Amino acid sequence: MTDPSTARPLLRLLPGHDRRVKAGHPWAFSNEIAMTPAAKALPPGAPVRLEGDDGVRHGTWLFNPHSLIAARRLDADPAAPLDAGWCRARLGAALALREKLYPGTPYYRLVHAEADGLPGLVIDRYGDALALQANTAGMEWLTPALVEALEGLLAPRLIIARNDASVRGLEGLAEEVKPLRGTPGPVRVEEAGLGFSVDLLAGQKTGWFFDQRENRARVARLAAGATVLDAFCHTGGFGLAAAAAGAEQVTLLDRSAPALELALAAARDNGLAERVSATRGEALETMERMVGSRTRFDIVVADPPAFAKSRKDQPAALRGYGKLARLAAGLVAPGGFLFIASCSHHVSPGEFADAVIGGLVRTRREAKLLVQSGAGPDHPVHPLLPESAYLKGLLFQLG
Amino acid sequence: MTDPSTARPLLRLLPGHDRRVKAGHPWAFSNEIAMTPAAKALPPGAPVRLEGDDGVRHGTWLFNPHSLIAARRLDADPAAPLDAGWCRARLGAALALREKLYPGTPYYRLVHAEADGLPGLVIDRYGDALALQANTAGMEWLTPALVEALEGLLAPRLIIARNDASVRGLEGLAEEVKPLRGTPGPVRVEEAGLGFSVDLLAGQKTGWFFDQRENRARVARLAAGATVLDAFCHTGGFGLAAAAAGAEQVTLLDRSAPALELALAAARDNGLAERVSATRGEALETMERMVGSRTRFDIVVADPPAFAKSRKDQPAALRGYGKLARLAAGLVAPGGFLFIASCSHHVSPGEFADAVIGGLVRTRREAKLLVQSGAGPDHPVHPLLPESAYLKGLLFQLG
Repeated sequence: MTDPSTARPLLRLLPGHDRRVKAGHPWAFSNEIAMTPAAKALPPGAPVRLEGDDGVRHGTWLFNPHSLIAARRLDADPAAPLDAGWCRARLGAALALREKLYPGTPYYRLVHAEADGLPGLVIDRYGDALALQANTAGMEWLTPALVEALEGLLAPRLIIARNDASVRGLEGLAEEVKPLRGTPGPVRVEEAGLGFSVDLLAGQKTGWFFDQRENRARVARLAAGATVLDAFCHTGGFGLAAAAAGAEQVTLLDRSAPALELALAAARDNGLAERVSATRGEALETMERMVGSRTRFDIVVADPPAFAKSRKDQPAALRGYGKLARLAAGLVAPGGFLFIASCSHHVSPGEFADAVIGGLVRTRREAKLLVQSGAGPDHPVHPLLPESAYLKGLLFQLG
Repeated sequence: MTDPSTARPLLRLLPGHDRRVKAGHPWAFSNEIAMTPAAKALPPGAPVRLEGDDGVRHGTWLFNPHSLIAARRLDADPAAPLDAGWCRARLGAALALREKLYPGTPYYRLVHAEADGLPGLVIDRYGDALALQANTAGMEWLTPALVEALEGLLAPRLIIARNDASVRGLEGLAEEVKPLRGTPGPVRVEEAGLGFSVDLLAGQKTGWFFDQRENRARVARLAAGATVLDAFCHTGGFGLAAAAAGAEQVTLLDRSAPALELALAAARDNGLAERVSATRGEALETMERMVGSRTRFDIVVADPPAFAKSRKDQPAALRGYGKLARLAAGLVAPGGFLFIASCSHHVSPGEFADAVIGGLVRTRREAKLLVQSGAGPDHPVHPLLPESAYLKGLLFQLG
């Protein structure tokens, strides 16, 4: 990786296409940039300078001629040196925020892409182990400097590249998982006094859903003495938080045997095994059977994987969320609570709420919407990318 | 108040106008109901039965022939006896929810209108003192039964009718404040270990803004060692919560001398006076001066009264929120935090966010949106009245 910033290629925005960039938007689309033969020949991910048709300079961007989002802004300075020192400053600001949000608990999303000034990059921190996802050619290009900066900043025992997100395909990148530093070994996450083993190499996301931390705490505060169903439980974050907060009986439900095994191991490790049981099965089918057998819970959590993987899935996804809400509500005892969430990027908060409420209305149950929430504050949102606020949670009490 | 439910008048929905009511919407508008001379002659607030043109019965509603929202649903049963026993069941369910949300701390919004099955009614609880707001003719009519039920349920020392909301005018009701039970005396609220005196007779809202409780806690968690500006502070809830959480210096700013006096008294009572100072003045003007004199704070809270009192104020309100965001951001030190809120019913969450972000963009500061939040869960929202979620809060970190 060499980038003598003085020799950085200069790309031009097309006449009349600089409005968004001027307003501070961190992306420039391929149809906004003059795609000269020289531009098209640039190696994917390389830094460029970007200039308006009016000669105004817009700083340093990482450029991928093969991507719809062709350029992502890194720095207002066109000559910013993109070395380990630059990375360390950017990572240091992200770290300072998390240390303020979660003092003394080094388990969080350390970097959340554009909002942290590192477009396309995700880093999750599990104490002295880090999982890094470079979802753009630019971040792939920057990875060596990022790793050097992380070593200086945190001296981690382990850095894993969890580069298996399908979005890498849009950038022409292969999917791969490999250690960048250190040797893979047991990794743990601690949350609200509980410890969980995490599968950094093959677990969903990077092994843990940090984004639901605040929502887990919110549900747990209602759980004393309650019976709880944790549907789509993955490694049991919601259910075990509820058990630790005094739930009488927690039922974990997931289709994945390895995820349930991790969840039950965590229940044992945390002294909660007596009050936690696991059911393996497709969540929707199992819930339908439970409704039929008149099983009821004081709290039902329904936190499925994204129903809409792409925009075209959206109508089916909305029907799915409506059905899930109806089924889940059918399992809630009178006066009990339903927490339902969507992590679909292609479903907006308003669309999700409408779908869920449509499903609830069909049950004829009185419902009180108590909280509408998103991901925790370690998943900040860039103000000009509100659509990147992908997580939506709704907490209801049902009559 | 007599209501032999068998003799309850029967009103009819107009042909083709029963869709919303059938879907479970808790309101029927005057242009959806057959306004016969007999209907028009009914006393405002009296209970009626409502029937579709197809003969389907839609339960018991409180009716006001002079209001645009002519009928509000109370019960699915057309013969529900609207006596103290009925009120006690409805109030008991609302109480059970709050006791689960805030165990052992009897300070909250006990009833939040439609979502709690008591349309038009607000009750705030300050330990053994209650402030009741009946904002519809129906709730005015039901007040004696409600008071009887509250006495049975909570045996309060004091119940104040805080019937001075301007919305009462839409229902043809006079504005008045008076005790319904007991003799007015000192009233206190406790929150997060702090005590505050509350002016139940003349304070804003009913004397305390319960809706911001979770947001105050969220800001306080960032406050250790910080300098804080609490603009539009009213009785200092945000600022004092920050001081108690370890803020180094808190500046309270408000135009109201009595509000600042209450805030400073609370600072003294809670042993925080040394780190809390007050500035009396118009918040926007004062903030503009502070920007000029390069005053900076680690945390700025801007929680103004509603800028949009009616729909026609909305464009000016949005400009106002943009200006407020720009000014407030100008007072935030690098790496510091801005919490900005709107309680305007006539500004949606998306409109507010757009206005605030528009103001921030003009400062050219990098901003991370950490949390989008609403009122606390003791302010539930009826699922079919999403527009009643009036409170919008945004927490940013600024670069």
